[in-house]
This record gives sequence, C-alpha cells and structure tokens, in this order.
Amino acid sequence: MTFTQELVLKTEYANAWIEFLSPKGEGYHIEIFDAANYSIKAGGKRIRPIIAIAVCEMLGGRTEKVMPFACAIEFIHTYSLIHDDLPCMDNDDMRRGIPTNHIKYGEAMALLAGDTLLNYAFETIANAKASPEIIVSVLKLISSASGASGMIGGQVIDIKGANSYDELVAMHKMKTGELISVSAKVGAVVAGANSQELSQIIAYAENLGLAFQIRDDLLDVEGDEKALGKPIGSDEKSGRNTFVNFLGLSGTRDALNEYTMNAKKSLDIFGDRAEFLLNLADYLLTRDK
Amino acid sequence: MTFTQELVLKTEYANAWIEFLSPKGEGYHIEIFDAANYSIKAGGKRIRPIIAIAVCEMLGGRTEKVMPFACAIEFIHTYSLIHDDLPCMDNDDMRRGIPTNHIKYGEAMALLAGDTLLNYAFETIANAKASPEIIVSVLKLISSASGASGMIGGQVIDIKGANSYDELVAMHKMKTGELISVSAKVGAVVAGANSQELSQIIAYAENLGLAFQIRDDLLDVEGDEKALGKPIGSDEKSGRNTFVNFLGLSGTRDALNEYTMNAKKSLDIFGDRAEFLLNLADYLLTRDK
Repeated sequence: MTFTQELVLKTEYANAWIEFLSPKGEGYHIEIFDAANYSIKAGGKRIRPIIAIAVCEMLGGRTEKVMPFACAIEFIHTYSLIHDDLPCMDNDDMRRGIPTNHIKYGEAMALLAGDTLLNYAFETIANAKASPEIIVSVLKLISSASGASGMIGGQVIDIKGANSYDELVAMHKMKTGELISVSAKVGAVVAGANSQELSQIIAYAENLGLAFQIRDDLLDVEGDEKALGKPIGSDEKSGRNTFVNFLGLSGTRDALNEYTMNAKKSLDIFGDRAEFLLNLADYLLTRDK
Repeated sequence: MTFTQELVLKTEYANAWIEFLSPKGEGYHIEIFDAANYSIKAGGKRIRPIIAIAVCEMLGGRTEKVMPFACAIEFIHTYSLIHDDLPCMDNDDMRRGIPTNHIKYGEAMALLAGDTLLNYAFETIANAKASPEIIVSVLKLISSASGASGMIGGQVIDIKGANSYDELVAMHKMKTGELISVSAKVGAVVAGANSQELSQIIAYAENLGLAFQIRDDLLDVEGDEKALGKPIGSDEKSGRNTFVNFLGLSGTRDALNEYTMNAKKSLDIFGDRAEFLLNLADYLLTRDK
C-alpha cells in the first residue's frame, strides 16, 4: 500500500472513532451537542490521533486501545480552535472553509461548546476500556500537555506576542508541540514502550511539532487560500512574529528541513517499522493545507 | 463547638488546601497563573468542598483523602464563574465585591484563565494521592457533573432562558445542583459509603442544591447589595425567569423551606452524625450572601 492510501485509511479510522465517541445527549440543552459536533465534524487533518495510532502500531500495540485517548486529544484540539477563533482572541470568521463556531452559533454557545469539549475529553478518558493504572497515566500526560504549562501557556504567549526567537520557539513548543508530543506518548504508553523507545518517540514528536508550525508560518506567507480554507497573510496583518520574521523565507525553509530531518533521525532505532511515521514527516513538510 | 465555629474552621481548612493545590508555574506565560489565582483567591463560601469534607467526616472517612477532589470541584466552580461573567455571557463587572476576571485581566486572558482552571481540575484529580480505582471513579463522577449534561447544560438553558417552571428546575438541577451533588458523592465514595448511605446523601445534596438556588433568587429580589458584593435586581433587569416569577415571593419562600426540610429528612439514617450537614442546610436557608 502507498503512504497516501495508508494515510487515507488511518484518517477514516480516526474519523469513525471520533464520530463514535463524540458527545451525545438530549434535553432542554440539546443545542450544545450540535455546536460541539459542528466543529468536531469540520474535519481537519487528524494529525494527533494519526500519530497516536501510528506509534501504537509501530510498537505492536492494539490500535483500538489507544483510540479513546486519541479522540480525547482531538476533542481538546477542537476546543482550543473554537476558543482561539472567538472575537476576544483571534476573531476569525472562517476555519477549514466553513464559518467558525461563534459565527454559526453565537459567542456564548461557542464558548460553552469549547468548554464542553475540554470537559468531555476527560470524560472520554475516564470511560476508556483500559485498566485504572493506564487511565491515570494517560490522564496525567494529557492534562499536563493541555494545561497552563502546555497548550494554554502557548496561547498566552501568542496573545501577548512573541518578542524574541526564543519566545517564539517556546510558544510553539507549548501551543502546538505539547498536544502532538502527548499523542505520540499516549500511543507509546498504551503499547507498553520501554524508556529508550519512549525518549526516541518523544524526540520525533517534538521535532515534528516544530516543523509542523514552521510549515504553518510558511503557508501563511506563500500558501494557497483555496487549499488552506482560510485567508493567507493573517500573521502579517495581525503584526504577529513568525519564523519568517526572525529567519527570513530561506532561513525558515532551512529550519523546516532541519527539524524534519531530526524528527526522522530519532526513529532510526525502529528500522523498517517506522516507515509510516517517516513518510508522515515528509508529508507534513510539503503539505499545502 | 458551635456550628458557626465549625463552619469557620472547615472554610479555613478548605482555603488552606485550595491555596496549597492552586496552579503554580513560571515562564513567558506567567500571567496566566496570576489570572487563575485571582479568581480562586476571591473567596466565596467554599460550599462544595465543605460538603465533601462534612460527608466524608460523617461516614468516618479521612478528610485529607477527599481534599484534592474537593479542590478540583472548587476549581471547576471558579472557572464556570469566570466564563459566566464574560461579556458574551452575563457581562458582569463585579463578583464577590471585586472586579471580575475579564475586567482585571482582559477578555482573552480571562477566557484562558477559565480554560486553565477546568483543565487543572482534572490535573489535580490525576495527581491525587489515591488508588487508581478511586481516581477513575471520581474522574467519572466529576467529569459527568461538570459536562454538557451537567453544569454546562444548565448554563446553556440559562443563556436561552428558562420558559417554564420545569425548565427552570431542570436548569438549576444542572447548573448548580450537579456540582453540589457531586461534592457529596465524592465525599461518600472516598469514605467508602454503602449504596443506601450514598442514595440518602445524594437526596440531601439534590434538595440542598435547589434550596441554595432558590435562596439566590430571593436574594436577588430582597438581598442587601453590600452583603452580596454585587448589585441586586439583575434577574429582573435581564428579563430572566426565576422561582419568584413562577411562584411569587411567598410561594418561593415555601419552596425554599420545603426543599430544605427534604434535604434534612434525607439524613435521618445517620442520626447525630449528620449534625453539621443539618445545620448547614439551615444556615444556607437563611444566608444573606
């Protein structure tokens, strides 16, 4: 099977589980389920669950064991996008080619839809078919990655503005990197990785996370609006510092290649078994959305 | 010791644990810890942790075992107040006699401070010194109580407006009742309650939760602004339906007495051991803030 075929199958598998585990309910408050599911169904690349699946498979783990945790991470990612798009944050009207949650449901409902998805991620972890020991291990990893010293901390730096290269790197490591890393960690923990395997997998994910963000910055300068589903040039418009500001276009491309190479090198110890994750790094390096 | 002395001591005990377990950190994103702790330290009655403590004590459980979970519930309560006060929700400038979080830190930071506290509640549960089995049980209870079919669902009904008495009761059972009930449940689970004890304790908490909300509605009509720390008449101003709209002042007072009596009757099986929780119900019935 080609990498592209495998990526499509893994994306479909992730989507099926996300649909299966998405929040459901009825009552006077039924709108909240529509609002939460609107953003879940808006799609996206599902990179985080795909990494969790691929790491778990590489280590010979059973994929269905990691899915509740992989979906929880995707729910957290989705909540962060809903809150990030709100008028008091980035004030974005479009995401993934459709109106953002608050444009569709109003600000109050979008705020609560985000809250719902963050909360529900932990409900999903709680109800996973796994031993209490595994659930608690995963809960520690995910709650730390998504918290004030993880993803939210990165958002804080983002709204203040990153004023130095170090601050920019710290911001991205937290804002995007932590959830990508924890996806890999959770895949590894569920598959029972040893400590050497775990540290190599974390190195892969950390480098991949930065490469991913660098590609985002490049796409905001030279991407195609139609492929992206959102306007380009938003970073320049908002006066936000990016890799391109600090390194220039050519320096940014070099950094992208270097982080991607480092990510791939981290997987040497896994030999052929790492094939999908190696191809994934190359794919993310050249993606147009 | 009088009830009042005991209440003061339990409040101080809860405050000491809340301070001990409050979110801490440093880095480029340090403001988020200030913003989160600003609302945690703003005080409040600490009713939820106090109920968890008192239920645990009544059943002979060790109080310190329940505290991480009791604090997690208080963090969730605090996040819900920060988000409820935002301009797109209730747009309140004052709470507990001081400026609300977004007035002090701006909307974006207040949004993220709320997100931080919700996330951190689950981090606190994950890191509790308890068996994985207890942690997973408590995680299921709390994540369900604070989610879309619990507290958040109640907020959804609230922003739409409750258009019937049934809808009003459903709203309060979810918006306030669920977190109060889960405080009692967590106290009971940690102390190892049997199923009969648990169901009586839940009946107490559910009735108490409604009585608590009815008293809130009455205070908004006939309370003292200085004691409350916020303006009265806000329900009428916002056109929001309350118990007073559906039952009248005298009918609302009757309902308050009835729910309080039902709460107290639920504790009959515990005899003298229930003394504090019985007094707490009477205290909440007559509170002026």
